Parts: sequence; structure tokens; C-alpha cells
Amino acid sequence: MTREFKIRQIGLTIQDFYQSKEVSSDLTETILYSVEAGGKRIRPLLLLELLEGFGLELTPAHFQVAAALEMIHTGSLIHDDLPAMDNDDYRRGRLTSHKKFGEDMAILAGDSLFLDPYGLVAMAELPSQVKVDLIAELSLAAGSFGMVAGQVLDMQGEGRKLTIDQLQTIHANKTGKLLAYPFVAAGIIAQASQSVLGKLRQAGELLGLAFQVRDDILDVTASFEQIGKTPQKDLAAEKSTYPALLGLDGARTFFDETLEQAKNLLEQLETESDFSAEEIQKIIESLRLDG
Amino acid sequence: MTREFKIRQIGLTIQDFYQSKEVSSDLTETILYSVEAGGKRIRPLLLLELLEGFGLELTPAHFQVAAALEMIHTGSLIHDDLPAMDNDDYRRGRLTSHKKFGEDMAILAGDSLFLDPYGLVAMAELPSQVKVDLIAELSLAAGSFGMVAGQVLDMQGEGRKLTIDQLQTIHANKTGKLLAYPFVAAGIIAQASQSVLGKLRQAGELLGLAFQVRDDILDVTASFEQIGKTPQKDLAAEKSTYPALLGLDGARTFFDETLEQAKNLLEQLETESDFSAEEIQKIIESLRLDG
Repeated sequence: MTREFKIRQIGLTIQDFYQSKEVSSDLTETILYSVEAGGKRIRPLLLLELLEGFGLELTPAHFQVAAALEMIHTGSLIHDDLPAMDNDDYRRGRLTSHKKFGEDMAILAGDSLFLDPYGLVAMAELPSQVKVDLIAELSLAAGSFGMVAGQVLDMQGEGRKLTIDQLQTIHANKTGKLLAYPFVAAGIIAQASQSVLGKLRQAGELLGLAFQVRDDILDVTASFEQIGKTPQKDLAAEKSTYPALLGLDGARTFFDETLEQAKNLLEQLETESDFSAEEIQKIIESLRLDG
Repeated sequence: MTREFKIRQIGLTIQDFYQSKEVSSDLTETILYSVEAGGKRIRPLLLLELLEGFGLELTPAHFQVAAALEMIHTGSLIHDDLPAMDNDDYRRGRLTSHKKFGEDMAILAGDSLFLDPYGLVAMAELPSQVKVDLIAELSLAAGSFGMVAGQVLDMQGEGRKLTIDQLQTIHANKTGKLLAYPFVAAGIIAQASQSVLGKLRQAGELLGLAFQVRDDILDVTASFEQIGKTPQKDLAAEKSTYPALLGLDGARTFFDETLEQAKNLLEQLETESDFSAEEIQKIIESLRLDG
């Protein structure tokens, strides 16, 4: 199954879910506007590639779990962009949800994207115990014990000089846990051993960290066209970032080292289990910063 | 188990959950401020009384499901009060979350209260299949196929003259499905037959409808002290309400009839199964409007 097919199928899975039992077409339109804005679909794609790495043939249920993850991510972007939060007018090169549909609709679209995905997973064709574990891990990664808490810590860090440890705690929660989720979820679905699950989680956390460092670097170096949103927002918000704390070269080195550690862990997994890391390694390579 | 004990235990269950794995104490504080504002806890209480009606001895897991339901309800109140939504300064007689903690924290507290409860249910000590069904129904009742969609329809109805059918569609989604959830959830936990489940759902929907009619009536007739929030907001927002469409007396009659239908259904359930409706009937009676 090609990567392009998977990406298209993730979007279609979300679309099918919303259009199957629609109550308010305006709500569906608002939700799908942000879902269809696209982005790289890195989280759901990682999950699907990891499942194939475990030798599984992909089923609609796998796409539904991948879609659920992307839905929560998309909901968080909609709320992050709100005037009371980051107050962004553009996201992925298009108007943000509240600029396009109004603040009330953007709030409710985000709420939906937090409330709905659990139902999608619960109704997927997978063993009940697998679904319960997937839901528990998703909830812990997304809410008060993960992403949302990280967002609070991040807001509180603005305008303050943070240590590298504090910065890592912020990002481990704000972006790390949801980026590690594909690894954990793949292990749950593949019914991997606790030891394999632990290594998967660790690799995912490292990749999540690398991702954040990369984002911070791009915020400094990239243009609107390259990242599809207003650059240098962090600087304007007086945020502590990896380039601010380590310098731009230091941040690049830290990024490379973190990616390297994730790759090494995945290689260990290959020797310990039937897992093939080939496609995941390609995704990791594609994250490399140019030049 | 007394009702007062149950009410206290619902709050403690939510508190324990948040304090067990806290990442941001400010986020926990913001969440618990709204949870502890109290209210009647009608949804979780209905669930617990219904479970006892089925002859079950209440366990911590039952309180966790009840708590999850109350969490989603509380999250919806926090977001409903936001400036971009109803712009309310008071709720349950206290400052609303955004007035007390700022709009960003209120958004994130609501987000948490949508993302977290599914994890709480998924980790409860109940059979996996029961948990999967509880989660699917909760998600469908709360998100785009229930409460949030109803909220959108409600906003779109402002300033327009609606038919009674349109009004019922709005409320069936906005408040009805989450008020019916305790009935559905009790049936799932008690592993009731499909026929009993169907009647439970219907009784819950009727009670949800009655609740909304009651709310509309109180908005016209009650003072700030009686309802703990600014009265006559509906009038100010030019909302279609039951008193507006049916007149105050007509709305009262409709309310009484709807309650009566719910009571009759519950009596039928008593003859069809081992279910005892005594405590639920008392709760329904306590909803009666004075005078």
C-alpha cells in the first residue's frame, strides 16, 4: 500500500465517519475544512507504517484508529489558533477555522474532534481489550496528562527563561505523547510483549522530541511559503525554544542526535522481534533538515 | 447508599483521577473549580440510582463511569460560557471559568474534560466489552452526533422563529442525549436485553426533553438567586423556547405530560424486568415545578 494511498484513505475515513450520521452539516463542514487542510498526516502515517512493520495487513479498523489520532491532533490545532490562544490567522497556508467560520464554530469543531474519535475507535472491528487499551492510551496522551497539560506549561513558560529540562517536560507532554502514540498503538494492536511496547514508546518519545526541536528550528529559519503559517511567532511570543537555549547549531546537533537515538532503538527492535523498521526509518530520514 | 454520599463520591472520584497523575497543577485547579461548583449532579446520580434499581451493588468503577459523564457535562458548561459563545459571567452562582482563570485556561480546561473521561472509563474495572459499549455511546451522545451538534443548531436558531419540531431536534441533541446516557449506560452495565435497553433510552430521552422545557420555563420565571446564573438570557438572545412557542401555561402542561410519559415507561420496565424504578421516580418527582 503506497504512502499516497494511505494519506488519502485517512482523510476518507474521517469524512465517511462524519457523513454517516450527520446531525449538523455546518458542523461537519467546519470540521472537514480543517481535516482536509491536510498537513503531512505524520501521526496516522506512522501508525500505519508501524503496523505494516509488524507484518499486519491493514484493515479499515486500523485506518479508523489512525483517523482518530489525526482528529485529536486537528482539534488541538483549531483550538491553538484561537484568538485567546496563539491568535493565528493562517494554518497550513489557509485561513484558520475561526477566521473562516467564526470563533464559536471553531470552538465547537475542536470540541467535536476531541469527543468523537473515541467513539470511532470503540466501534472499530478490533478485539475489545485492544480497543480499551488504545482508548486509555489515547486519552492519557491527549488530555490533562499529556497534550493539554503541555499546552498549559507552554503558555506559562512564555516570556520566561526556561531550562532545557523544563523545555523538555513541556514538549514531552505538549507534542511528545501524541507523537509517541502511533508507536504505542501499533504495539497494542500487534499485541506485542511489554518489553517491545516499552521500547516502542521510548522510540516514539524520542521522535516526538526531535519533531519539536525541528519545529523550533524551522520557526527561526523558514518563510511563510515553506511552513504555511506565520514564521517567527515564537520569537514574537518570547518563547523559550531549543535554538534560543542551545543556539541554532546546537539545536541542529541535538535534533540529529535525538533522531539517531530513535533509529537505534528501532534497530534493536528489529533484532528482538519480527518487526521491520524499514519504512519508519524512511519517514524519519524525511524529517532531516536541509543543509 | 444515601444520595448525599453518592454526590460527594462523584466529586471525589473526579478529584482522585486528576490528582493521581497530575502534570500541571494550574490545569487541575481550573478543572476542579468548575467540577466543584457542584450543581445537582443529575446525570451521574441518575446513573447510580438506575444501577441500584437493577439490583447492582455500586463499585468504584460505577462511580468512574458516572464521573466521566459529569466531566463531559462540566466541560460543555465551561465552553458554553465563553465570550464567543453565551458570554456568561456567572454559573452556579460563581464566576465562570474564563472570568476566574482567563479564556485560554477555560478553553483548555474544557478540552481536558472532553479528552480525559474516556480514559477514566477505559481504565475502570468492568468487562472490556461493557467499557467499549459505554465509550461508544458516550462519544455519540456528546460529540458531533449529539450535544455539540445540538449546540450548533441552537446557535443557528437564535433570532429565528422555530417550529416545535425544530426546537425538539435541537434539544434532543443539545441536552437530550447526554441526559439519556445514564439510562443507556445503566442498561449496558446491567447487561440488559436489547428490548429493555430500548425502553431505557426512550425514558431517558423523555426526561431529557422535560429537563429542557423546565430550563426554558425557569429562565422566564426565576431570579438569579434561584438558578445561580443570569436569568432571561434566552429572551435577550431572541431564542425560540418552549414558553415562547407554547406560552408559559402550555409549556408547563407539556413539561408535566413529558414527565408522565417517562414515568409510565419506567413502570413498564418494572413489570418487564427485575428493575426497580422507585428512586428514579423520586428524582423525577423532585424536578416538578413549584406552584
